[in-house]
Amino acid sequence: MPPNIEEFNAYRRKMNEKILACGHLGISRFFNLDTRAYEDGALPSKTKELLGLVASLVLRCDDCITYHVGQCVAQGVTDEEFYDTFNVGLVVGGSIVIPHLRRAFDTLEQLRGT
Amino acid sequence: MPPNIEEFNAYRRKMNEKILACGHLGISRFFNLDTRAYEDGALPSKTKELLGLVASLVLRCDDCITYHVGQCVAQGVTDEEFYDTFNVGLVVGGSIVIPHLRRAFDTLEQLRGT
Amino acid sequence: MPPNIEEFNAYRRKMNEKILACGHLGISRFFNLDTRAYEDGALPSKTKELLGLVASLVLRCDDCITYHVGQCVAQGVTDEEFYDTFNVGLVVGGSIVIPHLRRAFDTLEQLRGT
Amino acid sequence: MPPNIEEFNAYRRKMNEKILACGHLGISRFFNLDTRAYEDGALPSKTKELLGLVASLVLRCDDCITYHVGQCVAQGVTDEEFYDTFNVGLVVGGSIVIPHLRRAFDTLEQLRGT
Amino acid sequence: MPPNIEEFNAYRRKMNEKILACGHLGISRFFNLDTRAYEDGALPSKTKELLGLVASLVLRCDDCITYHVGQCVAQGVTDEEFYDTFNVGLVVGGSIVIPHLRRAFDTLEQLRGT
Amino acid sequence: MPPNIEEFNAYRRKMNEKILACGHLGISRFFNLDTRAYEDGALPSKTKELLGLVASLVLRCDDCITYHVGQCVAQGVTDEEFYDTFNVGLVVGGSIVIPHLRRAFDTLEQLRGT
Repeated sequence: MPPNIEEFNAYRRKMNEKILACGHLGISRFFNLDTRAYEDGALPSKTKELLGLVASLVLRCDDCITYHVGQCVAQGVTDEEFYDTFNVGLVVGGSIVIPHLRRAFDTLEQLRGT
Repeated sequence: MPPNIEEFNAYRRKMNEKILACGHLGISRFFNLDTRAYEDGALPSKTKELLGLVASLVLRCDDCITYHVGQCVAQGVTDEEFYDTFNVGLVVGGSIVIPHLRRAFDTLEQLRGT
Repeated sequence: MPPNIEEFNAYRRKMNEKILACGHLGISRFFNLDTRAYEDGALPSKTKELLGLVASLVLRCDDCITYHVGQCVAQGVTDEEFYDTFNVGLVVGGSIVIPHLRRAFDTLEQLRGT
Repeated sequence: MPPNIEEFNAYRRKMNEKILACGHLGISRFFNLDTRAYEDGALPSKTKELLGLVASLVLRCDDCITYHVGQCVAQGVTDEEFYDTFNVGLVVGGSIVIPHLRRAFDTLEQLRGT
Repeated sequence: MPPNIEEFNAYRRKMNEKILACGHLGISRFFNLDTRAYEDGALPSKTKELLGLVASLVLRCDDCITYHVGQCVAQGVTDEEFYDTFNVGLVVGGSIVIPHLRRAFDTLEQLRGT
Repeated sequence: MPPNIEEFNAYRRKMNEKILACGHLGISRFFNLDTRAYEDGALPSKTKELLGLVASLVLRCDDCITYHVGQCVAQGVTDEEFYDTFNVGLVVGGSIVIPHLRRAFDTLEQLRGT
């Protein structure tokens, strides 16, 4: 039920390339804004990735959660920091977030290799 | 396309255990509140499960719909009561609910063994 | 901040008449389906109004909440039954529901005349 | 209950200026993408404004609906074309869209000066 | 990860038949309204299908997107018109729409047979 | 159009007291979980308030945004940190977030007394 990380990343990369290759200027500029929103600025990249994760949780987008869990792991987010973020997402978004939380735990486990 | 009920329940149980084992007090208390929200009170458990089902329909969460359809079957909800609930969900939530309704019918069929 | 019930009802009635007077067949049929979804059927009207209320809570629509609180009062829903319904809406929908819950309590108070 | 168009436009203009004056590059680029998304392209601006209107209806954003109704009026959208668009928004988004439809009719009436 | 169009259509058709066979008048009338909302009227069917597509994008419903991409192809929507519609959906709905855009591109590719 | 902070806080406090006074154990426990979710833990309270703010932005809840902007000001969040958070909310949630961003800027201005 949870996505396999390797397959998820391969499909994401392949389709992003196709989308950017379509040549629509608005779409490619949006993708650029999206990438830059998480770079170091007044807030460090790690905090921004946590913001992206909690936004993805409350909007209940599995692919976005999978992506930001991966980015957070790369930024050195600890398990306890993940749980605090999951808890904010759960309280704000309600029990409807729980199925996504199950898959987020699964993804985190895959990424930690535990 | 619709989830197999056995696999759904097994994955749900396995991941809930892992989430509760993470030791975050806020998360485990939330899970407790979630369970108790559907127990008999001023409203009987059956009515509360119907409330949970319609909330899941309009928020368009397949896993939550699958779970509450199962709980409603256990509470003795009849097919006609299900259809009335589906209809409220459809009217309030719109045609965007229809794909979830297809899977809800499929889940109900699996659970009835018909 | 909460709507005045009299003004709310007057505006709702006036604008519904204008919408129906526009003569679009699809729109007027939709309004008819909406009305009939809450009539007695396999489930009694009271239960359907509770379903409409919880759906409105989790979708966070103040006007819909105001309307269904009024319909529930007319159906004889007790305070304790309201609280159980609010609780399901709160647990499913999360803390984002709380501002709407404040206004729902206010509306209920107005309608009870307390 | 419906917004006064003059006040709405004045507040929108004033605050957009303040937002752009804050100097955040990502935000100002986003505002630019937003403006350009509705310009003539493969689809004419009128069709794009109808797309913006229906998206605003199903996402239930009153300010966005008010804005796009105004843009559609400027593009020469007829009443019957508005009703068809409202109907698609209503069917896709469900009865939860109705309170916003009331205000959209009100806004349209203000703009037509009828 | 993207749905196979043949399987999607077969499952959709099979379950729609079961839903309509359940005999609930409200549900079958809703399905009828849904079908008629996209027929030629003040706006041509092609424009209405674009409205249905953008509404599905911002509400992030993969099945609805797959269905409306298919309808749009049948209506002769060009690739450039699709990209303009995708761009409006992306700007209005945000980056949370991107995973659905990936699958929409994939579906379009399947339907074009490219 | 933006809320007056004093009135907002007074109404929020008054209605929260009424809600807690209703005596429903599930509801009061939920309010407690909500409060504790933002206390210092593995993540500092300031980061958690930023998480609450971005979640409120993408879910488009004005009252929640007003509240978390106030909490963030109390935690010493700088203007530039606010803008970075607003930008993440805007990119993830799309242009539908813009009307809420206008009011968030207005609220921030009120709180800064500028």
